[in-house]
Amino acid sequence: MKLLCEGLDLSNAIIKVIKAISAKTPNDILECIKLTAKGDYLTLLATDTEIAIEKTIRAEVLEEGETLVPGKLFNELVKKLEDEQIELTVEGTNLKVRYGDSEGFIQTKDLEEYPVINKDIKDNSFTMSQKDFNELINMTAFSCSQDDGRPILKGCKIEVDETSVVCVALDGFRLAVCKKELAHSTGKFSAIVPSRTLIEITRLLEREDETVTVVIQKNMLMVEVASTVLVSRLLEGEYLNYKQIIPNAFLSVIRVSKNQMLSSIERAAIVARGMKNLVKFDIKEGNLNISASSELGKVDENLLINLEGKDLVIAFNSKYLTDILRAVNDDFVYMYFNSSISPCVIKSYQGDQYLYLLLPIRINA
Amino acid sequence: MKLLCEGLDLSNAIIKVIKAISAKTPNDILECIKLTAKGDYLTLLATDTEIAIEKTIRAEVLEEGETLVPGKLFNELVKKLEDEQIELTVEGTNLKVRYGDSEGFIQTKDLEEYPVINKDIKDNSFTMSQKDFNELINMTAFSCSQDDGRPILKGCKIEVDETSVVCVALDGFRLAVCKKELAHSTGKFSAIVPSRTLIEITRLLEREDETVTVVIQKNMLMVEVASTVLVSRLLEGEYLNYKQIIPNAFLSVIRVSKNQMLSSIERAAIVARGMKNLVKFDIKEGNLNISASSELGKVDENLLINLEGKDLVIAFNSKYLTDILRAVNDDFVYMYFNSSISPCVIKSYQGDQYLYLLLPIRINA
Repeated sequence: MKLLCEGLDLSNAIIKVIKAISAKTPNDILECIKLTAKGDYLTLLATDTEIAIEKTIRAEVLEEGETLVPGKLFNELVKKLEDEQIELTVEGTNLKVRYGDSEGFIQTKDLEEYPVINKDIKDNSFTMSQKDFNELINMTAFSCSQDDGRPILKGCKIEVDETSVVCVALDGFRLAVCKKELAHSTGKFSAIVPSRTLIEITRLLEREDETVTVVIQKNMLMVEVASTVLVSRLLEGEYLNYKQIIPNAFLSVIRVSKNQMLSSIERAAIVARGMKNLVKFDIKEGNLNISASSELGKVDENLLINLEGKDLVIAFNSKYLTDILRAVNDDFVYMYFNSSISPCVIKSYQGDQYLYLLLPIRINA
Repeated sequence: MKLLCEGLDLSNAIIKVIKAISAKTPNDILECIKLTAKGDYLTLLATDTEIAIEKTIRAEVLEEGETLVPGKLFNELVKKLEDEQIELTVEGTNLKVRYGDSEGFIQTKDLEEYPVINKDIKDNSFTMSQKDFNELINMTAFSCSQDDGRPILKGCKIEVDETSVVCVALDGFRLAVCKKELAHSTGKFSAIVPSRTLIEITRLLEREDETVTVVIQKNMLMVEVASTVLVSRLLEGEYLNYKQIIPNAFLSVIRVSKNQMLSSIERAAIVARGMKNLVKFDIKEGNLNISASSELGKVDENLLINLEGKDLVIAFNSKYLTDILRAVNDDFVYMYFNSSISPCVIKSYQGDQYLYLLLPIRINA
């Protein structure tokens, strides 16, 4: 393998693909980037076997070939060569990196052990605006479980039909559902996608006014954006029937300024830290009292609200509430309650753009 | 104590003084901020007993008094009240923080145990431009020892005469000396100032075109900038006679582009990590070869230089060299050598604005 390319192109490509490398892997082959020189292109590929990211850049290929180099080291060196033209040559078990009057040598690794990535994925697909895709993920993925004990909950359920996509995330304490229109779809299908994959896809999306197409086949997902291809495994198993846990009727509804409530809860959270993040809501017509107290101190906030229905006292984990309020873009939010021990629902007043369900913390009256 | 003040003023003042609080102190009294309401002002004070920072803001004082509150908690709460007018009231063992229709309570601590800060410091002083002070510290303080074993070397020696100040830092492997003109001085004196104090002073300096006055008396130092007062202990003991370790004559001098050399050493440092940061210089007329190799790989760089004197092979710790090159503002640097086992000197070509001395690493020829 021998080729010439621009340092800046190579550095940008490394930054893209290196995100597929897991920070801690026991297998040092998976810390590597695979380089393939063919035709007029150099292709970089990195994978942790769950996600693979591949990026192709222009290169003057003098000799086709491929090699495997430690990703972190290659990244550090090339990051300091962004202004240079770079010549890459495989010499024995080294990759020679030539620039100006100087050169570096990086020990290569054995290509044979490197995973093969299948990109022949085509059965089902949906296309939507990049802006909507970002919102879909940012409004839901934070509610996925972080717990390896229930791996299926580390993913989001994606439900596609002819005109829309619904993304669902839940972790046993909370549920997030978001719905967006599609520009195109091959029909009705669903998949459970690791939340990390979805977040990596949002990082590839640099042009909000353009669309993105997600392709799914059996247990694999593929996205291609500006000569970067991301391939990911899907999660396999039964997802919870989340619809049956959402109540149909409510006894109390409040309307409250989102920013005011977020600020109040953030302040209450400061002292709530000393008390398992517990913040208490005392809901009456015209007034929402939010309070928290611990050995650190006490915060007692009063917010103007509209209440329809009966008064209520209920408590939540402040972290879950702030996660939701930071994700929502509306000026006002609507919260729906039944009792101090029933789940609370936060949803768009009209339509079904988003819905959050949150379990309360039991407190003594 | 009872007063009204603006949330933004209070938040900015907390951010200034909280820097005096050490991240890990076994004494929770030293995690506190002392509040004093008097006349038309609220004064905030924090100290770790080495450094104290005090900031005064305008306030409508309804009842004079003082109290002590946990700094981190107070900071977190007030940071979220920057848009509010705040009423602070001591109620029993609590500080009540009132804003809008809401309020917080913070447990106060016993004032009696809090250190008393003496600000009656006046004997010696020097005044210089804030820009020069920043350069003086940024060009030297990084060379101080981080090692508690020789506490005196954790400070910089400041030598003042009628017209100039010299700042010296050394850690046993390297020495940094920088000299600046003074706008005013009370005469000849010197002090050993903790490098942390000097760095905190540079953080207070927000107006490069104005001057700063440093006042010293016995073992204390004081600086006042825009209603913020910093008081620090000085280090006591004998400082090394650094002048006697600087060679007077050299056998080789090179002139090299600072940015080119910095880039080369940064690249070499990537592989040198695997080899105790060792980078090798092979100096010949017209060419400086910088190389490093380890099990990670090899970097081999060639730079155009001017050499006066004899050829030389010498090796350094890459970290020490990059520290120096990042601190120097010149386009070209001059490096002075005698042999591969004698210290190297980097200094301004003319004048005595700065001088660095660096011990080489012995290598086998």
